[in-house]
Amino acid sequence: MTDNLFPHVRIVLVETSHPGNIGAAARAMKNMGLTRLTLVKPKEFPSDQARFRAVSAADVLDTAVVVPDVATAVADCGLVIGTSARNRRIPWPLLTPRECGNRVVGEMGESCEVAVMFGREDRGLTNDELAQCHYHVNIPTGEAYSSLNLAMAVQVVSYEILQSLQHGERISVDGRDWDMPRAPAEDLEHFHAHLESVLIDVGFHAPDNPRQLLPRLRRLFARVRPDQMEINMLRGFLTAIERRLAR
Amino acid sequence: MTDNLFPHVRIVLVETSHPGNIGAAARAMKNMGLTRLTLVKPKEFPSDQARFRAVSAADVLDTAVVVPDVATAVADCGLVIGTSARNRRIPWPLLTPRECGNRVVGEMGESCEVAVMFGREDRGLTNDELAQCHYHVNIPTGEAYSSLNLAMAVQVVSYEILQSLQHGERISVDGRDWDMPRAPAEDLEHFHAHLESVLIDVGFHAPDNPRQLLPRLRRLFARVRPDQMEINMLRGFLTAIERRLAR
Repeated sequence: MTDNLFPHVRIVLVETSHPGNIGAAARAMKNMGLTRLTLVKPKEFPSDQARFRAVSAADVLDTAVVVPDVATAVADCGLVIGTSARNRRIPWPLLTPRECGNRVVGEMGESCEVAVMFGREDRGLTNDELAQCHYHVNIPTGEAYSSLNLAMAVQVVSYEILQSLQHGERISVDGRDWDMPRAPAEDLEHFHAHLESVLIDVGFHAPDNPRQLLPRLRRLFARVRPDQMEINMLRGFLTAIERRLAR
Repeated sequence: MTDNLFPHVRIVLVETSHPGNIGAAARAMKNMGLTRLTLVKPKEFPSDQARFRAVSAADVLDTAVVVPDVATAVADCGLVIGTSARNRRIPWPLLTPRECGNRVVGEMGESCEVAVMFGREDRGLTNDELAQCHYHVNIPTGEAYSSLNLAMAVQVVSYEILQSLQHGERISVDGRDWDMPRAPAEDLEHFHAHLESVLIDVGFHAPDNPRQLLPRLRRLFARVRPDQMEINMLRGFLTAIERRLAR
């Protein structure tokens, strides 16, 4: 007997050091009806220790996808959420675990693959990785000790995703009933690369003195959540600028 | 820096087999601002493995209280909640983790010590132990795999307790603004022992053919949540019956 409650939701673990945490995360996922696991450069996988801690979630490990970087892990995703400690230099739209659960369940579907990412045990996600997310999610803690074990964080977020499916608030999702699907993360990455190139061409962005221009633009378009047609329009605009400059 | 968010709430782990789970539970507790841990007959404690998994929650282990049975663990508690799989033979008032968090936070205080109990890794709490609870709490899961790791269960419940403190619904608690404090669990146990004795004396309860009389009476008084004066009245009534029979 297998649930298939969340066919369009994946959990992404980035550069996990301890294979036991991968196994414990797989168990936590399956307990909450989640089955799709993507591993970005795990230190050790497959692993007996992961299998031991997964107990009856070995199938989640067997079907796990191993990829070389975050961009590949989320390339086809229309919604990407990354776990983060608070107080990043540039604050991102921030969800509570409950809001994260509601948003995942509200948006997931055939036209919107969803990824929730968890970083390294010791350092979390890098700023570059967090900049590839539409939202960040922070798990509230007591003040005395705020560092959750990785698999525990997966447990809390997975629990809230199942909670939302079972009896969450229905949030109004601005991507539902839209005429075009969201642009997948990969297209957004290409757009940002294109944008950066044009910014340099026009002399507005100096790579040797970047200030916070690129992350702030990333944050802006993460909030916009452009659809596929909008991304094509933006790309067309950039191409038009390039052509004009080349004359 | 230490929180003291929950001075009147204890987590009780019953006959834990794996010391690593005790350490992971301590960390999960402290992450959520909970610091009071009671261990009923742990298989191995203190333990290096527990300390390793607790990471920065060693203080929770250092101050943990070890007791021989559940009755001792909750003797002074006015609210006792036990984690349980669904579908017990006699259903008990059942809370979701969220309702559990709201109830713990709604009732905890100087006149109401609160205990949340977690059973053995393989078998949970016994029926006798569950009968000592006012409420049961069940963590919802997917259908394919419903058995959470012990420390993960502690994480989810502790998370909901902190969530409730930070921005939970205020539930109406019938024990607040009451003229008498709740009877502690110990007094309720003495009452049940007394009641059982009188039931036998009057020929209504046959220990060799118990049917479900005692658990059903336990469930009734778990719902009543008698205050101290009410328990004294009930005890007085039982004593009066005994005296009458002895004449």
